[in-house]
Amino acid sequence: MGQGSRVEVPTGAAVVRHSVVKVSSHHAFECQDHLAVEEPLEIRLAGMSLAVTMRTPGDDEELVAGFLFSERVISAADDLDVIARYRVVESDADSGNVMNVLLKGDPRVARELLRRNFVASSSCGLCGKVTIDAIRASLPPVETDVMVPRDLFPRLARVMGEAQPTFEKTGGLHAAGLFDADGRLMVLREDIGRHNAVDKVIGYMVLSGQLPLDRHILMVSGRASFEIMQKALTARIPVVAAVSAPSSLAVQMAIDTDMTLVGFVRQGGFNIYAGADRIATSAGELA
Amino acid sequence: MGQGSRVEVPTGAAVVRHSVVKVSSHHAFECQDHLAVEEPLEIRLAGMSLAVTMRTPGDDEELVAGFLFSERVISAADDLDVIARYRVVESDADSGNVMNVLLKGDPRVARELLRRNFVASSSCGLCGKVTIDAIRASLPPVETDVMVPRDLFPRLARVMGEAQPTFEKTGGLHAAGLFDADGRLMVLREDIGRHNAVDKVIGYMVLSGQLPLDRHILMVSGRASFEIMQKALTARIPVVAAVSAPSSLAVQMAIDTDMTLVGFVRQGGFNIYAGADRIATSAGELA
Repeated sequence: MGQGSRVEVPTGAAVVRHSVVKVSSHHAFECQDHLAVEEPLEIRLAGMSLAVTMRTPGDDEELVAGFLFSERVISAADDLDVIARYRVVESDADSGNVMNVLLKGDPRVARELLRRNFVASSSCGLCGKVTIDAIRASLPPVETDVMVPRDLFPRLARVMGEAQPTFEKTGGLHAAGLFDADGRLMVLREDIGRHNAVDKVIGYMVLSGQLPLDRHILMVSGRASFEIMQKALTARIPVVAAVSAPSSLAVQMAIDTDMTLVGFVRQGGFNIYAGADRIATSAGELA
Repeated sequence: MGQGSRVEVPTGAAVVRHSVVKVSSHHAFECQDHLAVEEPLEIRLAGMSLAVTMRTPGDDEELVAGFLFSERVISAADDLDVIARYRVVESDADSGNVMNVLLKGDPRVARELLRRNFVASSSCGLCGKVTIDAIRASLPPVETDVMVPRDLFPRLARVMGEAQPTFEKTGGLHAAGLFDADGRLMVLREDIGRHNAVDKVIGYMVLSGQLPLDRHILMVSGRASFEIMQKALTARIPVVAAVSAPSSLAVQMAIDTDMTLVGFVRQGGFNIYAGADRIATSAGELA
């Protein structure tokens, strides 16, 4: 299989092998290497197209459930009737990338809900403060009495690294993991889109009936953006930890909704950007 | 300025300072650190909302021009009448995050064009092949006789790193740079969204009348996704280089449209995923 050939992606594969030419200062040779799979996923509600996202195949039911939950179209697995893969028998094209959702209620209500939430959360470009205010108007700050010992975060980073099978091969996937307050990994998912990895994690908890998540920690392999904080807030997750940097709007959102946000979580330590009172440190250290 | 306070973002700032608690195994202390700014930008066409993107402020005119060019609403700076920041004097809110665009032609035509391109490129979730086919139907493969010496790529990575002012401070920004075939940096832009950084780079070249880009190299600081390849193809840029991994669909798109795609560009070497014939290596090495 040479360079000019198609990238052969078996249905549902998250990683594929493909021919690559490795070049260094002294030589160049062709070999097989791994690629993270990126494919579009279309979500349909009662047969009508709702959204298309570029995602890594796998756990598509969770992705759909998590997306609908994050967008507040559903509030529990009970609201779902069916999540089914769409099959187009007449077509040559691989039809594994379309998921159809049936809800128990009127799909028109869900559609209107989605439109309203979308308008509230993203159509006002005035400034970040207005954007957060619109979200806060319908979502109260998190409420929890959970405390996290400070030596837990570097441990979570290590567990994430060990549990991340694909990244090692491809260097091309984001990961999201959900932990309980004792640091037990509940679920880890990888995806080419960081928001998809988070949707899959939350969708898994929704579908397996493990809500609420108000004593849990969401950890992401990269940066923490506004979008990640919004998904965590909707799921009522009080603590978000990122291996890399948070954005200004992610920090502002954490402050405004009483979430705990830590970043640059490494073996040696981490940074607290908001909600330090939820992290148990030795008395007097933060004086 | 303590942890619980607002993140103060002066209008147009790309980086802000904010209070952070740094925790290591033996101590914790509060200090000022840098955050990459994330703010929504709303793009309006003749006063009507067209899109909202989360971006890092700065070079907003370029971002708007690059976005419209990538979406094929405009094909040159000549198609633009005005790109102006919207000011709402009655409002308390910072109104620096809304840009209004006037085109020389009928805005209804532009709107219809945008709708059609959007439908063609993203509303079919059937599979990546169908998605690429839809784009190829309206955009032919790149055509150029440009050749790139193989020792150029590690040099580009070094230039990118040296020219990237904000990443060093925040660890939170993507960068995109455009180089000519001799490795001269034409423009470099940073943004919290990798697609925005690319739009700003392309927008700069559009606004400064430096099209066509068919002898240029686009370099991105992170990974190469389908979306990046789509923007490069629209701008007719034949060579894309990424510091990190490409996705399967990015590789497929490069193969199908005759683009050159290299990844994992480091000091020691790089990988060629497509279009190796455009990279000048010593004779016989790839035999």
